[in-house]
Amino acid sequence: MARAHSIAGSDKESCAEQSDTSPFGIASGYDLDLEKAIELISKCGAMRVGLQAPEGLKRFMPALARRIEELTGSVVIISGDPCFGACDVDMKLCEEVDLMLHLGHAELGEGPENAIFLEARMIGDLSPVVRKAAGMLQTRRVGVASTIQHIHKIGQALSALRSEGIEGLLGPAGERIKSPGQVLGCSYSTVRALDVDEFLFIGTGHFHPLGIALATGKRVIAADPLTGEVSEIDADPMLRRRYAAICRAKEAKRFAVLVSKKPGQIRMALARRLKEMGEAHGLLMFLVYLDNIEPDRLINLGAEAAVSTACPRVALDDAAKYRVPILTPPEFEVLLGERDWEMYRFDEIE
Amino acid sequence: MARAHSIAGSDKESCAEQSDTSPFGIASGYDLDLEKAIELISKCGAMRVGLQAPEGLKRFMPALARRIEELTGSVVIISGDPCFGACDVDMKLCEEVDLMLHLGHAELGEGPENAIFLEARMIGDLSPVVRKAAGMLQTRRVGVASTIQHIHKIGQALSALRSEGIEGLLGPAGERIKSPGQVLGCSYSTVRALDVDEFLFIGTGHFHPLGIALATGKRVIAADPLTGEVSEIDADPMLRRRYAAICRAKEAKRFAVLVSKKPGQIRMALARRLKEMGEAHGLLMFLVYLDNIEPDRLINLGAEAAVSTACPRVALDDAAKYRVPILTPPEFEVLLGERDWEMYRFDEIE
Repeated sequence: MARAHSIAGSDKESCAEQSDTSPFGIASGYDLDLEKAIELISKCGAMRVGLQAPEGLKRFMPALARRIEELTGSVVIISGDPCFGACDVDMKLCEEVDLMLHLGHAELGEGPENAIFLEARMIGDLSPVVRKAAGMLQTRRVGVASTIQHIHKIGQALSALRSEGIEGLLGPAGERIKSPGQVLGCSYSTVRALDVDEFLFIGTGHFHPLGIALATGKRVIAADPLTGEVSEIDADPMLRRRYAAICRAKEAKRFAVLVSKKPGQIRMALARRLKEMGEAHGLLMFLVYLDNIEPDRLINLGAEAAVSTACPRVALDDAAKYRVPILTPPEFEVLLGERDWEMYRFDEIE
Repeated sequence: MARAHSIAGSDKESCAEQSDTSPFGIASGYDLDLEKAIELISKCGAMRVGLQAPEGLKRFMPALARRIEELTGSVVIISGDPCFGACDVDMKLCEEVDLMLHLGHAELGEGPENAIFLEARMIGDLSPVVRKAAGMLQTRRVGVASTIQHIHKIGQALSALRSEGIEGLLGPAGERIKSPGQVLGCSYSTVRALDVDEFLFIGTGHFHPLGIALATGKRVIAADPLTGEVSEIDADPMLRRRYAAICRAKEAKRFAVLVSKKPGQIRMALARRLKEMGEAHGLLMFLVYLDNIEPDRLINLGAEAAVSTACPRVALDDAAKYRVPILTPPEFEVLLGERDWEMYRFDEIE
């Protein structure tokens, strides 16, 4: 495995500005820079090209596949399985093709050699929502974080803060994190590295800002550039739900320890450690290796509870879908009394 | 890939006779011969053992894993993904372990070197249901077929027929077929090889005897050893449903060509041929490579219809689950006018 390529789109070559002359005016609202990918396919003479994207971009894939085939003469194979991130590169498809285009996520450290990551860069100005958020910030020196869709415009956010008299700081990129200030659902190293009392998160959804709040214990303001909404994150309801899940899991004797097959989510060594820990406490623990973690996978195995070493969203975000409680590794430690509830830790993948 | 091992259980060592001294009195109604597997694990010093089974056997796996760990000191990893046959060996798990125990199916030609196939052999006498079926047979020389759960008792069935004055014939084993007389959902070579006017199928469910009827065009009597029911197969309702599906698919312009990732179901070359054929008829065809074929996989891709080159049951058995028509490869040829409806062919994987 070598560090995989990544192609960053330039505003000039945006495919989503929807000019009629662009062959790729298909992923409305996103800049995917597919012209460069086409160039690369032609240059390296790829005969078979793989195409993978998260659910939100899947509807553009058939037309995109057709265009690539027309322009390059290659055959395109679309990955039909769900895709949840750069942790979830379709390795079987990589084996099947000469070149793999993984859309919508930044590379995650080591990846397959023939994969190209085409980030989906959201078009739109961050300044208005950042200026609105500035009014809710209590300090003049804040950490700033975002997800890959917006990170190319993070400079715009810092400028907007500066014009409001606020200094915005970005934590450093690292092994799994490609850009300063970027956070993943499973990795908050950029924000943990900053010595500030407050964070501004720019992006969509509540999972990432909740992660920042739990990973740092600091105040977090979330600003959504799509809806224009700004809100202060309250981690307490989630912490209460997690405490309740731990209490429910105390009734269980048969625990599945879930290990993901997804290349960026496999934590087999951790799973084996948790299995031993549970067994030492008299529980029946069994290791389950699987691709997509879904409720019916656990029913036939008769698990009364589970510990998930896969993406932390499985336990934290999807809990309501499951009949049995699913804990993160630190939560399982709390259940066993190996960790104090006061030392609750948000599960991150290193 | 080398021909994988297969362990056939002997009646003497049956694990399902439920004696209290057997460590494996866990898979009630089946003979799995796990003692031999244990011996093998110990002999080859496997430290990590994989365990895979179809849904019907999954509930026994946690206790089985525990027993294997206790008796051998190895760590057992259970495959948590769905498993539909020997075509569906968990290759990722095979890579993760020293020895893989695949339960419930006979080996399917070439398999991973470290996989052991432990057939699930159903306990119970076939004679009563076969004698009952004899009353419905119209000829004195019939082809006999069954699935792997019962094939070890097929001799019993032939004797029962003989005592009723009927000669039962078994078609030969072959590349994907391990035992004479055995059929798979996707392979009817044993019955096609016989020159008879009538077949007796012994087993559960309607899919296999329907397959025999469609693959041979002959009369089929199905005898279910579990329920004791005997019935004549009528293929017409299914043929009518398939004709209707082809008619519905005629409205579609955007076709997904589904290719399975499962090692015994990949038919990429066929898929590419079908794609070209559809394009020559002016359709938008796109190749989709995926593991488990489920309805929501097609929704986000915007497919108006699909051709499945995976297990024929996807199109034929699960049709009601899908919003769009899914055709088998021969049905897609009918749709394009490349094959006459009168030449309808049951889809088999060679």
